[in-house]
Amino acid sequence: MARILKGLPAANALTQILAERVTALNEKNVTPTLAILRVGERGDDISYETGAMKRCAKVGIAVRQFLLPGDCTQKQLLDTIRQINEDASIHGCLMFRPLPDKAMEEAACRLLSPEKDVDGMTAGSLATVFAGKGAGYPPCTAEACMELLDHYEIPLEGKQVTVIGRSLVIGKPVSMMLQARNATVTMCHTKTVNMAEVCRNAEILVVAAGKAGVVDGSFAAPGQIVVDVGINVNAEGKLCGDVSYAEVEPIVEAITPVPGGVGSVTTAVLAKHVVEAAEKTVKD
Amino acid sequence: MARILKGLPAANALTQILAERVTALNEKNVTPTLAILRVGERGDDISYETGAMKRCAKVGIAVRQFLLPGDCTQKQLLDTIRQINEDASIHGCLMFRPLPDKAMEEAACRLLSPEKDVDGMTAGSLATVFAGKGAGYPPCTAEACMELLDHYEIPLEGKQVTVIGRSLVIGKPVSMMLQARNATVTMCHTKTVNMAEVCRNAEILVVAAGKAGVVDGSFAAPGQIVVDVGINVNAEGKLCGDVSYAEVEPIVEAITPVPGGVGSVTTAVLAKHVVEAAEKTVKD
Repeated sequence: MARILKGLPAANALTQILAERVTALNEKNVTPTLAILRVGERGDDISYETGAMKRCAKVGIAVRQFLLPGDCTQKQLLDTIRQINEDASIHGCLMFRPLPDKAMEEAACRLLSPEKDVDGMTAGSLATVFAGKGAGYPPCTAEACMELLDHYEIPLEGKQVTVIGRSLVIGKPVSMMLQARNATVTMCHTKTVNMAEVCRNAEILVVAAGKAGVVDGSFAAPGQIVVDVGINVNAEGKLCGDVSYAEVEPIVEAITPVPGGVGSVTTAVLAKHVVEAAEKTVKD
Repeated sequence: MARILKGLPAANALTQILAERVTALNEKNVTPTLAILRVGERGDDISYETGAMKRCAKVGIAVRQFLLPGDCTQKQLLDTIRQINEDASIHGCLMFRPLPDKAMEEAACRLLSPEKDVDGMTAGSLATVFAGKGAGYPPCTAEACMELLDHYEIPLEGKQVTVIGRSLVIGKPVSMMLQARNATVTMCHTKTVNMAEVCRNAEILVVAAGKAGVVDGSFAAPGQIVVDVGINVNAEGKLCGDVSYAEVEPIVEAITPVPGGVGSVTTAVLAKHVVEAAEKTVKD
């Protein structure tokens, strides 16, 4: 029976610490404030927004919604971002992606101030994740993996870690963050040969393939820690991860569930970035 | 007997292609121009500068030197970079690093236009290497590894590649560039446990540890391609790489020599970036 690494305890522990930091900010007359910028009415976005707003309420972060119609112009979007950049009372901005118009999304990513980029969408944030220093923040989901591993006190230094997936929102940033913590990271993807073997050799396996059932029992080994970042809907209409839980769980030492794993930590990390951004304005 | 992957043939082949591209640019009244920005009189810098200027002459790139005294002020340095940024006849800028003053170096990296950053020193270039798209260029030495592998038609897709070293000038960017070419990359460093074993399992080994003798025969396996990026001076005062050549060469399939390997390709890559930057100004 594997140890189940649930997200909620990690999220709650972080929330409590953040609430204390917000109290300290309030004493300096600062209310950490998050701008949520949503284009259109996509169900996934609205559902995440609801969760983020609840988390912010618990932490003591004010939220200001900037809602644009699905058919808004690029000028409308960029004007909104400009307004957010210039408003000193806003510390962070979460913009839902992907946008239907790719060129518009890229223009938005170029315009947002890295200092307010609490979800790793600007080049400034990406360079910071890559270089290990600079302005901006990693994508929340990538950092949620790290928070979860840290909450359960899983050692990373010198560990062999395999990451499946090379997206800019999870695979690549989590690889760099694990490396920064002195893990030896192997980055796998759709062109990897003998992926099962590469994964079996890992002490920690982070799966962000974006496809259900990519990791089956043949990828798992005793003693392994498995972090499943995937969120998919299976044939029965139920949420599932990228890992075949029923096959892998009996083999490994610990595994994150889906739902209730990494995904439960993401909004707490978002809140953490907003609090950090607010703290930086006080220090400056 | 391993195949010796010398840098000169790769550099010469690239130089010839670039010279043809410069001819095409000249017909459009464009002379690709590189600004070389050097602070002080460090021997390593001057020696690289001499090589870069020779390479540029062969390719047909004009070079403009901006030389500042070792004790120049930050204002002098930033004014010079501003001048380079604003001069439309300059397509690329090579600034020698490290500077004695770290804060000054960081300010310089922040100011240079990514479009003119032909050696991967700006956050914009780093984000581009990380994301696989955007303005700027990878550090020349990292790309020199790729040029060398490509020149000798070493397949990368699906290959297991181990990179030793995680610097921003070689280890990290070359890892991302290899991944972008669909290799499965493992990133090793000083905290890696069982490094010899991790390296023996690699089909291609890229060594950028910055220390002589880091890789001995126990790291090597038959069939391997070894790229040695190190440049060190040994006890006898001779140049040597990070790999114990005498031990590794008899085991592996192919290996780059030091000197005469990756280092010989670097200035050709610099020239390539300047030509590309000039071509972009014509297209825009």
